[in-house]
Amino acid sequence: MNTNRDNRNKSNKNNIKNIMDELDIIKTIFSNIKYTGNAVKSIGDDCAVFKLGNQYLTITTDMMFKSTHFPEILTPFQIGMRVITANVSDIAAMCAKPLGIVVSMGFDYPKKAFIEELIRGMDFIAKEYECPIVGGDTNKSKELTLCGTAFGITDNPVYRENGEIGDDIVITNNIGRVYCGFKILEMKNKGIINKNTFKNLLNEYPSIVKKLTEPKARVKEGVAINKYITSCCDISDGLGKDLKYMGNFEISSKKLLNAVPKDVVEFCTKFDLNPVDVALNSGEEWELLFTTKRYNNVEEELSKLGTKSIKIGKIIDNGCYIDGNTFKFGGYVHRWSK
Amino acid sequence: MNTNRDNRNKSNKNNIKNIMDELDIIKTIFSNIKYTGNAVKSIGDDCAVFKLGNQYLTITTDMMFKSTHFPEILTPFQIGMRVITANVSDIAAMCAKPLGIVVSMGFDYPKKAFIEELIRGMDFIAKEYECPIVGGDTNKSKELTLCGTAFGITDNPVYRENGEIGDDIVITNNIGRVYCGFKILEMKNKGIINKNTFKNLLNEYPSIVKKLTEPKARVKEGVAINKYITSCCDISDGLGKDLKYMGNFEISSKKLLNAVPKDVVEFCTKFDLNPVDVALNSGEEWELLFTTKRYNNVEEELSKLGTKSIKIGKIIDNGCYIDGNTFKFGGYVHRWSK
Repeated sequence: MNTNRDNRNKSNKNNIKNIMDELDIIKTIFSNIKYTGNAVKSIGDDCAVFKLGNQYLTITTDMMFKSTHFPEILTPFQIGMRVITANVSDIAAMCAKPLGIVVSMGFDYPKKAFIEELIRGMDFIAKEYECPIVGGDTNKSKELTLCGTAFGITDNPVYRENGEIGDDIVITNNIGRVYCGFKILEMKNKGIINKNTFKNLLNEYPSIVKKLTEPKARVKEGVAINKYITSCCDISDGLGKDLKYMGNFEISSKKLLNAVPKDVVEFCTKFDLNPVDVALNSGEEWELLFTTKRYNNVEEELSKLGTKSIKIGKIIDNGCYIDGNTFKFGGYVHRWSK
Repeated sequence: MNTNRDNRNKSNKNNIKNIMDELDIIKTIFSNIKYTGNAVKSIGDDCAVFKLGNQYLTITTDMMFKSTHFPEILTPFQIGMRVITANVSDIAAMCAKPLGIVVSMGFDYPKKAFIEELIRGMDFIAKEYECPIVGGDTNKSKELTLCGTAFGITDNPVYRENGEIGDDIVITNNIGRVYCGFKILEMKNKGIINKNTFKNLLNEYPSIVKKLTEPKARVKEGVAINKYITSCCDISDGLGKDLKYMGNFEISSKKLLNAVPKDVVEFCTKFDLNPVDVALNSGEEWELLFTTKRYNNVEEELSKLGTKSIKIGKIIDNGCYIDGNTFKFGGYVHRWSK
């Protein structure tokens, strides 16, 4: 008569049923959306895509909450930049040109000075991306909540899963700094370093801090390489997770290290981190990750913009490998529990 | 030496400076957005508008929080319907055809059964509006947060401020039921009526409950009357507030009462309410409010859809009047304070 244990087991099972992570939620959402209308591409890429005449409209949305999305060292101006950049980055990942963005905002205790700086940050970067803020909504909320929806236009939307066997896998600029930036914050918050060391590290690694606080969407890059590439996404969850969109691949840690800048290597040495792991787990980089048969054209186009292009591997016919070993996908998954 | 009082005064002044209502916030946002790009219409109408080839793209966004936006009697299915309807209603207010919608969602303690019903409600009504859900984002949040962005397409976007002198001012269907629905909830929450009376009222006034819980966006109506009207908006904040978009007008309470259905008049008699006030303060009706020189065509087109059209007044050259008296604008303004 194990009634108690049985009940406990039942209760545990119910609890497990009630705990959903982000992937469970997305699966539940997916399976209950039956009506798909006339979209060329619906849920499941960086953007939804519609055909309008000879052009394609691309749409993306990204919602951010103060407690989970904004590193504590961001100024209100940088928070404003971030909500625009996170959204526009998905337009860039389709290699489309931004058309505009709407931003809904929820405020808990709105102060004029904060809102002014927030909007100035949005407006500043919106201009850089040529993506005007054309609408929004304001509400009372329990914490600062910003939800952007950006839309763009292109003759040729580039999806994230169309790479072909033999294509080079390439990333823009560099990778790893954002991970290091979060590491500095984490060490301070866990009391591993004191306030002085924290300040010194911020001064010692300005490019790491800059990439953490003011990452950029690669809009011009996406448009410039549009016709030379076969697939594209942005590095938002970390290469270790975003690589799954590429299908089958082999990458080389040696090549990947070509994309890791010197300051990240130094930082890794100092704090006993593996730079390959850092490169694979650095999210919110918003660099482009793409495949191409025409690396030389890509390199030429990107160099005109002062942007580096680094080959990290190739699309293959079967399996996912790093240095000949099976690749372990990783990355952050939001998890909710009672 | 009134130091204390001076300090107190200073502190009061600072507090006053810190308390912003929705209009202050919108003003602050407006004044800090400098870059407007190529939008045909930017912030300040139901939708932003872009020209794409021979067509116009219309975009709108609406963010909703559980604690402020969802009447407590809504089922998860009805919450899902509501977020789609609120957004699509702005597309209808431009007399455009919906193309699609993206919905970002924040969950506190997500349960599968709730999410399933929520999404089913969204999908059900999205199909009715022919406005597929094509993307979204999921997050952890402090309370249920839903942010939709709908987009539509039209040859002729109808703005809300282009009515001309002599135009009839018209509303679709009827007005007032949503106010009565909220009144029933308010009376229960304030203890003015007990649970039994509450239940009885819900049974006694099914059309009031239906309009509160399942209001509809007037999509087909907007498209049908597009070429016969000069301006249009949806009744979201209440006629008493939304009428301001019409410019100068005179309305007649007698005509307005033609739009107030019998059950609302009965309800008003029972609870000592003025049906004209109820009609003017009933928000989230999502009926269309528009101006026209061709009322007969409008009436004919709408009657094909089984939709009534009620003339409530006219656009005039100067001033805003009801029954010859100056019209007092009203409506709900979110107010934040520390």
